[in-house]
Amino acid sequence: MSKCQVCHGKDGLAKLPDAPNIAGQKEAYLVKALIAFKDGERKNEQMTVVVKGLSDEDIANVAAYYSSIKISVQVPP
Amino acid sequence: MSKCQVCHGKDGLAKLPDAPNIAGQKEAYLVKALIAFKDGERKNEQMTVVVKGLSDEDIANVAAYYSSIKISVQVPP
Repeated sequence: MSKCQVCHGKDGLAKLPDAPNIAGQKEAYLVKALIAFKDGERKNEQMTVVVKGLSDEDIANVAAYYSSIKISVQVPP
Repeated sequence: MSKCQVCHGKDGLAKLPDAPNIAGQKEAYLVKALIAFKDGERKNEQMTVVVKGLSDEDIANVAAYYSSIKISVQVPP
């Protein structure tokens, strides 16, 4: 989790311009993305390094945490 | 835009479990993702079909719209 927070924030709002916000992201999407990075199907310098250290349980926990953040949106007029 | 909304909503909140929320997503990330789908670097059945019809200008416009949606988050205690 602490590794995720460096770029994606504890609140799931990206701290770097190239990183996506993941607050309240769909749990299934997060799991799928992390597995895709782990399998090399999706490529990203940072993510490829970070996911190497994640077990299936870690992936499930990270996805559960970030998806549990409630988001509300305000569409521009 | 209308094609995007089917899955991602006009408000950027996904209408299908497999689709990610993209409300307030970082503009650079959205552009990068769309180009990656267009180039075949990222693969997804729906996205691969949809991006075929998008010009560079369309991609810029879609990314600008969804990134302009304001999001606020509530981290669980």
